[in-house]
Amino acid sequence: MASSQPSSERQKNTIDEVFELIYWPGIPGRGEHIRLAFEETSTQYTDSAQAKDGMSLVTSQISTKNLGDTLNPPPLAPPILKHGSVLISQTSNILLYLGPKLGLVPTEEEDQGGIYRVNELALTALDGLSNEPHDCHHPVATGLYYEDQRSEAKTKAGDYIKNRLPKFLDYFERVLSGEASKGGEWLYGGRLTYADLVLFQCLDGVTYAFPKAMARIEKQGKYGKVFALHGRIKSRPKIKAYLASERRQEYGMGIYRHYPELDES
Amino acid sequence: MASSQPSSERQKNTIDEVFELIYWPGIPGRGEHIRLAFEETSTQYTDSAQAKDGMSLVTSQISTKNLGDTLNPPPLAPPILKHGSVLISQTSNILLYLGPKLGLVPTEEEDQGGIYRVNELALTALDGLSNEPHDCHHPVATGLYYEDQRSEAKTKAGDYIKNRLPKFLDYFERVLSGEASKGGEWLYGGRLTYADLVLFQCLDGVTYAFPKAMARIEKQGKYGKVFALHGRIKSRPKIKAYLASERRQEYGMGIYRHYPELDES
Repeated sequence: MASSQPSSERQKNTIDEVFELIYWPGIPGRGEHIRLAFEETSTQYTDSAQAKDGMSLVTSQISTKNLGDTLNPPPLAPPILKHGSVLISQTSNILLYLGPKLGLVPTEEEDQGGIYRVNELALTALDGLSNEPHDCHHPVATGLYYEDQRSEAKTKAGDYIKNRLPKFLDYFERVLSGEASKGGEWLYGGRLTYADLVLFQCLDGVTYAFPKAMARIEKQGKYGKVFALHGRIKSRPKIKAYLASERRQEYGMGIYRHYPELDES
Repeated sequence: MASSQPSSERQKNTIDEVFELIYWPGIPGRGEHIRLAFEETSTQYTDSAQAKDGMSLVTSQISTKNLGDTLNPPPLAPPILKHGSVLISQTSNILLYLGPKLGLVPTEEEDQGGIYRVNELALTALDGLSNEPHDCHHPVATGLYYEDQRSEAKTKAGDYIKNRLPKFLDYFERVLSGEASKGGEWLYGGRLTYADLVLFQCLDGVTYAFPKAMARIEKQGKYGKVFALHGRIKSRPKIKAYLASERRQEYGMGIYRHYPELDES
């Protein structure tokens, strides 16, 4: 137990530190998952998207000259979270760090293994409903324009809508139908966790990118619990207020892009 | 402090439980990251790859009829770890769970934030040196054969070797050059963590897939610390013995595939 003293001392040092989100200005992007966690819990945070020098806050962090500092390796890409002396990247990793601090996961005392189940659900949503939709418009070269890979994008998006999207929607419908969800209102444990917020944002983005496909799929009625979760999050008072605010940026040329020719006709 | 009692009681229940890895037999794949963590630490584990009914152990878990159990949501895909009542999936998530139990990360008492930095490094290696190499042979449709997307694969692999692979090698060279590595021998904190094992396996797989490109890049000498780490892990006694054993499966039709036409000529 001797070691618990320095740990709680150190925690005191960061507990009042402001949470600083560093992400590209101008799009919701992967930063949005972090914003929604802050907004839902009324947590104070700063956001490079709202700063005058927002772009350079990002580029200086991901510069190939950055070697990190004595505590933190350099980040490869945003989103990046700075909190006291901690500087970390990777969307799911930042949420893992914030989850217990913001009350968006059960504690290990309440529910052993819960944080890993929530992390698993968040990772799976990001894989199939964020990374794969991004690859639909950039299937063969991240560094080239969409216009230079339109034909490949059409193939990829067609496969995504036909095979991959239903696979992931079916998965989350099963998660919500399973006993571990404790009732099917939330993904895990009968309570809101950050995995629900991630799934909300993913569904929101996919609907922006492929509105016709998503409208057809919703009408099918096979994934009623998933679409209900999206609506439930959207109407939560703090999320609703946030989505109506200027802090919510518009979709555009980010992860989720709407090219009508990639949607179904 | 009242709540710590039930938690340690519950931990006692799982501490002697066997670790069960559930993954496709026949390829190293994503399961290999979990195996290396067990092997390096001489941890007892069972492996569906070595079981007679290994394939059905996987398919029953990922069946679209599986709704999970009272504690665990269903897994979408392997690798899956079963440990007592905990059943979790997602490679980085399983390592996050195993890290403290196997001594492959600093504890939060020793190093606040360390587990998040190690998780970040593992996630980044998996993104750029496992997921992207997979997408090189399946750029437009995961469900189709490679032969049905050869032309797109050629474009993707060319872009990967020219742009993406050097980006990630440069990143890890910077991590090893930064102060947080504490000397450049290991990625983080001057000690072996599971992020080093992940990077080793990723480099090993990429070298299998693109031997000519990797040989040229190694000769360039720009990423000396990265290649040295690969060699350092490979010659660790327990890893060396494992790699020479029958438990180490051969590369084939998995994440990492060697199609000569996708490598540089």
